[in-house]
Order: sequence, then C-alpha cells, then structure tokens
Amino acid sequence: MKKQGLSRRDFVKFSAVGASALALSGMNLVAAMNEKDVKWDEEFDVVIIGSGFAALAAGVTSAKKGNKVVLIEKMGRLGGNSVINGGIFAVPNSDIQKKAGIKDSTELFMNDCLKAGRGINHRELLEMLGKRAQDAYKLTLDCGAKYIDQLTHAGGHSVPRSLQTENGSGSGIVLPMIDTFEKLDGTTVKKRTKFDNFVFDDKGAVVGVIVRENYKFDGNLMSDDVENKGGDTKYIKAKKAVMLAAGGFCRDKIFRRLQDPRITPETDSTNHPGATAGALLTAFRAGAYPVQPSWIQYGPWGCADETGFGVGSMFNVNGSFPFGISVNPRTGKRYMNELADRRTRTEAMFKVIHEKGDDDKNFPINFCDSRALKHMLPGHYEKALEAGICKKFDTIDALAAEYKIPVAELKKTIARYNEFVKKGKDEDFGKPVAATTTKGIDISVPPFYAERGTPKVHHTMGGLNINTKAQVINSLTAQPIPNLYAAGEITGGVHGASRLGSVAITDCLTFGMIAAETIG
Amino acid sequence: MKKQGLSRRDFVKFSAVGASALALSGMNLVAAMNEKDVKWDEEFDVVIIGSGFAALAAGVTSAKKGNKVVLIEKMGRLGGNSVINGGIFAVPNSDIQKKAGIKDSTELFMNDCLKAGRGINHRELLEMLGKRAQDAYKLTLDCGAKYIDQLTHAGGHSVPRSLQTENGSGSGIVLPMIDTFEKLDGTTVKKRTKFDNFVFDDKGAVVGVIVRENYKFDGNLMSDDVENKGGDTKYIKAKKAVMLAAGGFCRDKIFRRLQDPRITPETDSTNHPGATAGALLTAFRAGAYPVQPSWIQYGPWGCADETGFGVGSMFNVNGSFPFGISVNPRTGKRYMNELADRRTRTEAMFKVIHEKGDDDKNFPINFCDSRALKHMLPGHYEKALEAGICKKFDTIDALAAEYKIPVAELKKTIARYNEFVKKGKDEDFGKPVAATTTKGIDISVPPFYAERGTPKVHHTMGGLNINTKAQVINSLTAQPIPNLYAAGEITGGVHGASRLGSVAITDCLTFGMIAAETIG
Repeated sequence: MKKQGLSRRDFVKFSAVGASALALSGMNLVAAMNEKDVKWDEEFDVVIIGSGFAALAAGVTSAKKGNKVVLIEKMGRLGGNSVINGGIFAVPNSDIQKKAGIKDSTELFMNDCLKAGRGINHRELLEMLGKRAQDAYKLTLDCGAKYIDQLTHAGGHSVPRSLQTENGSGSGIVLPMIDTFEKLDGTTVKKRTKFDNFVFDDKGAVVGVIVRENYKFDGNLMSDDVENKGGDTKYIKAKKAVMLAAGGFCRDKIFRRLQDPRITPETDSTNHPGATAGALLTAFRAGAYPVQPSWIQYGPWGCADETGFGVGSMFNVNGSFPFGISVNPRTGKRYMNELADRRTRTEAMFKVIHEKGDDDKNFPINFCDSRALKHMLPGHYEKALEAGICKKFDTIDALAAEYKIPVAELKKTIARYNEFVKKGKDEDFGKPVAATTTKGIDISVPPFYAERGTPKVHHTMGGLNINTKAQVINSLTAQPIPNLYAAGEITGGVHGASRLGSVAITDCLTFGMIAAETIG
Repeated sequence: MKKQGLSRRDFVKFSAVGASALALSGMNLVAAMNEKDVKWDEEFDVVIIGSGFAALAAGVTSAKKGNKVVLIEKMGRLGGNSVINGGIFAVPNSDIQKKAGIKDSTELFMNDCLKAGRGINHRELLEMLGKRAQDAYKLTLDCGAKYIDQLTHAGGHSVPRSLQTENGSGSGIVLPMIDTFEKLDGTTVKKRTKFDNFVFDDKGAVVGVIVRENYKFDGNLMSDDVENKGGDTKYIKAKKAVMLAAGGFCRDKIFRRLQDPRITPETDSTNHPGATAGALLTAFRAGAYPVQPSWIQYGPWGCADETGFGVGSMFNVNGSFPFGISVNPRTGKRYMNELADRRTRTEAMFKVIHEKGDDDKNFPINFCDSRALKHMLPGHYEKALEAGICKKFDTIDALAAEYKIPVAELKKTIARYNEFVKKGKDEDFGKPVAATTTKGIDISVPPFYAERGTPKVHHTMGGLNINTKAQVINSLTAQPIPNLYAAGEITGGVHGASRLGSVAITDCLTFGMIAAETIG
C-alpha cells in the first residue's frame, strides 16, 4: 500500500476522465421510474440481479417454491466472482463437525468473525449465519455440489469448520446450482443484461426493473456503469420481489478509490472485471443505507505475473504459504508470518514490494518443495505451471538465480525455517509451523515450486444495509423498501472491517436462501 | 468501546423501534420533486442548509458577492456544533507562523493529516486546505473574530499552526460571522426550518428545496429525521445554488450504529442534539457518493458527569491532559499517554471504564494542580467548577477519598510522574513532558482540580463526496450534480480515518468559502 496515497499523475489522469470521457453527452441518466410511466416487456414473480452464490441460492429456493424467477447477469458468462473463487466454505455447527467430534457454536463462530472484523460487524446478521449456514450447505448438496471428505482449518477460525469443493473452486458449487436452477420450472436466465434502475409504485414499493439487453460490458472504460451506452432498454415487472445479488465493487475504479485513494485505477484485483458498484450505487439512490464501504480487503496470495485471481492464487493459498515461505528477493530473507491474517500479510508484502520505489517493484518470492503438492488438489498448481507463472526448479541455486536472490542468504533462511519446522515453533514471525499445519514438511526435497507474489484487491466488506430477513432498509423510513431484497457482497455489515477466509460463500448462500424464504 | 458489540437487550430495543414507533403510518416520505410540480413560496439566489462554520463562510462570502442568501437551520439556535466547539483553528502557511519564524508548508500539513487519517484522506481536498486556509482565516478576521496572540501546537501537528479564539470557544468565530451575515444586504436566517428534500429540473439540476417551517426538533425520538412530522411545508427556489452545510451525524442513533454497532443509542456525544444524518442521507438518495462513513471519532476529553460537550471538556483538553495525569481509580495508576492521538486514548480509556463490566463503569480521574489554571482561559474551567463537575481539593488525600482511589498508590503514581516531568521524559507511556509542553508543571502545588473522564462520540469523518470546488458528485454520472454544493462535516474524505484536532474549523471554513466562490 502506498503510504502517500495518490500521485499527482494519478490525479491528473482521474481529472482528465472527469473532464473528458465522462463528460460525454447522453450518459446513462437512467432515473428510477413510476410504474404508471412504464409499459412492461416481460413479467416474473422474482427478478434477481446477479448470478453468483447469493443469486443462485435465492433463485433455486424461490423457484422450488413455484415462483417464476429470472436471473439478470450483465456479463457474457454466469457466476460472477463465485465461479472463480477458491471454493472454501465455512459451515459452523455442521453435521460434519459433529461427526468429526469438533465442538463448534454460533457464539464461537461470531466471536471469530468479530475479532477479524474489529468488532464492527452487524452481530444480528452474523448470528443468522451461525444458525442457517448448515441449511445453505444442504441446499448445495441437493443441487449436486461435492466436497472433499475433510474439514479445512481456515485462518482466523477457532476450529476446523470449512469445507472444500472437490474441484478446488467455487465452480464446484456454482455449476451444479446453475444446472439445478435451469431445470426447475418457470426459470429464465438472461445474460448480457444490465440492471439500470428500479420501477416503483406510488407507495414506494419496488415493482420492477429497467434493464438493457444485448449489453456488452467494456472493462477498458474508466467506468462501464457510467460510460457504456450499449444495449436495448426493457422493462421487467417483478410481481413479488426484486433481489440484488450483484456482488462487490473491487473492480470499480472510481468508487473503490473514493473509499481508499491508495487503490489507483491500475491496482489489480482478484475479482472478475464486472465487479463494479453500479447496482449498489443505484440502491443507495433508491434509499438503501450505505454501511462501512471503506473497508476493502486485499488477498495476499495473488501472483504478480498474471492479472486477476488467475490460476496462480491457489498455489499460494494451499501450497507456498502453509508448506513453504515467502522471501524478499533483495535480501533472501523472510519478512512475515505466511499464515497471518490477510491485512497483516498485505501490509508486510506491500512494504517489500515498494521498498525500491514505486517504479521498480520488488515482488516477494513464495515457494515450497515437492512434498507440498501431495497435499494440494491438482487444480491448485497444474494450470499455474502450464501458464509458466509458477516455476519448477531442481535446486535452490537455480531458484535463486531465476529471481536474483542472494543465494547464500536464501540458504541460511531456508535452514533456519527448517529448524523452526522441526521444533514446531517459528521464532522469527510466529507462523504456526506445528505438524498439524505443515505436516512436518520443510523446504528440502526437490523440485521446488515458486511464484512472484502480490496482494490484490479481493473483497469489499461494505455495501447496503439489510435486516436478518434480507430486506433492504430505506434511510427515509428506517423500514424495509417494500419488495426489495439483497444478499452477498453487495450488502455490508456482516464482516465488519475484515472478512475471515471462507465466510464469503457462507454469507452469500445463507442470505440468498433467506431472501427467497422471506419472499415466499 | 464494548468489544462484543451490541447486547441482546440493545437489539430488542432497536427492533421494537423498528416494529412500532417507526412503523407509524404517515412518516415523512418526502420524495424529491420536479419543479413542474412545485409552487414556490419564496425565492433566493443561494439556499444554505445549516448555520455553522461552513454555512457562515459560504453565506458571508456569497452575500458579499451580491447574492440573496438564506440560511436554513432546523434548530432553535444558530451555529450547530461550531458554536460549542473549542475554537482551535489550524491555519497552515499562515502569516502568524511566518512572523513567529515557524516553517510550515502545504506538504507538511498534508503529511500530518495523512498520518492521522491512515493514508485514506482525499489528498486533493487536503491540498486545498493547505492553499486556502489562510484566506479563510482572513475572512473570519474581516468578520471580527479575535484570536489570542500565540500559536497552539495541537496534537499530531509537526509544527505549531493552530490559533485559539479569545473566548476559548468556536462561538468566538461563529457569533461575529452571524452578525456580519445578518448585516449584509439580502440575507435571511430561518431558524426552526427543516430541510426535507430537493427540487430538481428536468435535466437533474437542483433548483430548490422542500422545507418545513415552525419545526420543533425532538431529541427524545429514536430518529427525529424519520419520526418527526411537525412543521409547515414550504417550497424555496434557489436560483443559483443549494449548499449542504448540515454537519455530521454523531447524534444519529440509527446511522452511526450501522457504521459502528458498538455505538449504542445510549452512547454520549460531544455534539449538539441536532447532529443527525438526515440531510446527508437525502444527499445520498439524490445521488451523492458516500465516502468512508464508518470512520467515527471519539473525543477522549469528555466529562462523565454531564451529557454532551458540556462545560467540562475544555478542562481536560487544556488542563488535566497537558499539565496533569489521568488515573484508573481502582488502581491509582496511570494507564495512557494523556496526549496520545484521540483513537489511542479512547481505546485506553474504554478499557479502564469497562474493566468491571458494563454495568459498573470505572471512569478514569483526570487532574492537575493549581498552576495549570494559569495557562488556561477562564472559560476552560470556571463553568465546570460552578457546575460541580470539576472539583477542587486541598490535598491529594481529599481527592483520593472523593473518587475512592487507593491513596498510597496514587501518591506513588504522582511522585513517579513528577520525576518524569523533571527529567523531561515519560518512561511509562511516552507522554511529551518536555518543558515546551508542560511548562515544567508537575502535580505538587495545591489546590488540585479533577474530573471524571470519558470519551464521547465527537466527529464523523465520512460523508458525501465533493471535488475541490465543493461541488457534490453524482454517482450516476461521476459528474457534479448541477447547482449542488457541500462543505464541512457533511462531506467525507478530507480527514480519512481520523481527523487531527483543530482541522475541523479549517475544513468547514475553507470549503464553505470555496463553495461560495464556485457559485459566484
């Protein structure tokens, strides 16, 4: 993270956008409308904006109740970020925990989340996750999702409570849910369809949406939401409810920077290009309370040699961080606990990255030895190796030569770390190196596998305010906006200042399901 | 700060409000209107919502340009929080600094603010303060504000750059500015007039406001903004501009808790009762981008024996903290650097306050000796003594007896602190006790003066987004909302995560003045 915020150059760029590109006439000034002024093109019971975990949990649950449901997705493919996420799913109080003799409770889960969230989490929402995550998990099983038969002890959780999909990706949940949804009666999926605004009745209830079909998202624009004028406007009636499940804003170059000016338009993100704030901002204009939008989380496991979540992230999450180390290539030394919380690791990594100045980035090298791969799913490293961003070395000398690391120092660092693994205690950075975490694996059996690491913008904790029924609250009345629901990353408050790993899926699926239950 | 957030009881209370009081039919569903549907009652060039520093700087500047200006104030008295604030005003690059040989710069000022603000400040706004604060200061002099002839070195600033009003209060600026405003041609002040919403033209420009006259603010309601239906609706045309200068939301029981659930409806604030989020939320519904609303600052100098800013705060700011110490009454020991930044002190104090549980609050005792008073303005202690919340003791034994502090421990603590003052070094907590700060005053010359201290919610850093011209930016277009301006605590970004002391006046006056300049 750059300490000094934006450079002058960044500002000039941003101002230039303000003055030229965005100042085009005829921007998308799509105001909310009254139903009296609308001729409906189509009609559904429930209109869901988005197609990730939250949208699918709501869609499947709602369609099973006999509702006519449509999913509205602006991108050309379904699944949002959910389909590229790591597929680790925290389920507190699960049957699997009981079978494994692990004692968990809603209170323990809430306390873990509150600790990570710096105490500003909305407790009543967290409590719903503790109570209902098991039901959301069952919903995914009913749809055909498959998980490996072992609980993961994800960082910051007091007990093992996280499941891992069989294919090591969120697609292991998303794809069977899409399949299930599409096979249910009365369901429709609209891709390349952009949500523009709401249609209200005279009493302020949401009765439909304005969308554009045949929309081509353009990630090269400073703001697709503001600048993209493409597509054909349609009016879709929602007889029972509109649900917002449009995700977070990690890729919104304008809104994320208003919250944290250190995040420049160039800053990379693990998210898919469509993760912008458009639907969220429209909800604010409709009266939704904004909640904690300035808490933005980096994922420290990104790979510097590709953009986005890519194919390299899972190598660090499941390989180099738990079973290996991360070193500063300039010194050959470790500089952090590779399993610290996301915020701590991100700060440590940015310090290394920027130590030579902003224009000569010094990316840390994350690596592990051959035995680590036996504890990973093939999906966690094969594609990264194929892409050439994860590299294989027969010797430490070869690895050091590739990344220009002082080899004598690097060997000292490895020897010291290996001692820590033997002792079960990291005396330098406090990484948990007990056998339960490292399986006794140190860095000694070639070949060695390495990536250049970097944090990337990963999750936006803030969003719009919902109650425990997934209803969106209106700041004008402090009451629900009639017929408007939301779930997942577009909402705020559940995670407070920092989300614990593996609770995103929990949040999205549980409140998606709850929204459909409330709608009825 | 309660670590565990809201108690179940709090929630039940809040839900009860949701279910009953707020669910009354006929709430203030005052929607924004189109000018075609409005019959104007009155007409001005510039309509300013609020009557504190930002409103007055804009009002005076605008009226001097020949505009017909109205100030709209919902309360029965003018001045908002500004009139009860401490009157310490940071002016970087000032003539007074030059005269005193103090080297300052916009960069130095920005770096101080960025350090406090954790780097998320909007640098371009900070830069305007560095460049224009001196002009805002001159504006106050022209209005007749008077300052003592000595710069204050406020906490977190690299150099002395803060002025203090002669009367030790923000009223030393506010009252002469009100007087100046009222004497200017074409000016109007409307008290007890509540801003409800905007009137737009067909192009989305703000052309007026909807207000209620004869409004009686009711601080006993959970939300005056939502529940109070009183007053007579009027439509006021704004030929040139509407400016929002309605302040922060430290007293908004609903919105502040959405941002930080540890702030319960019962949590006290230094702010006047009218500091609610109503105007801010209306701006969000009109399309203003929300910026960083979850950063809420406590003032650690509050007195536990009165509500609000009261008459006791300035005793701690100017007396017990710089010249004395704060002790835990249970142990008789110090527990913090009494001049640390606001956030650090707040956390330390809440730890002491809640150490016996939430129902038996253990308020710290802040005290100093008689010599401290010679370095304070009479306004800093006289009223607190009269009110009996600041107490005078002839001996340390009497002080210890009053607050049930173990006297032997307390005397040891004092002796140790006095040694630190002699050495010029606080070896326990790192308080700056050099003679430049303490004037060599320790705790030895009776009588002694003491208050029970507590942090109170003091400033909301977040708000709506403005550019350097004080124009409000629309999230639908990423462009200014035509004719809409804002300045002061209702805006966000200037202070980032934490505002430095004495920069509030700078922010409000400078951007208030700039708004009027942009309006022309």
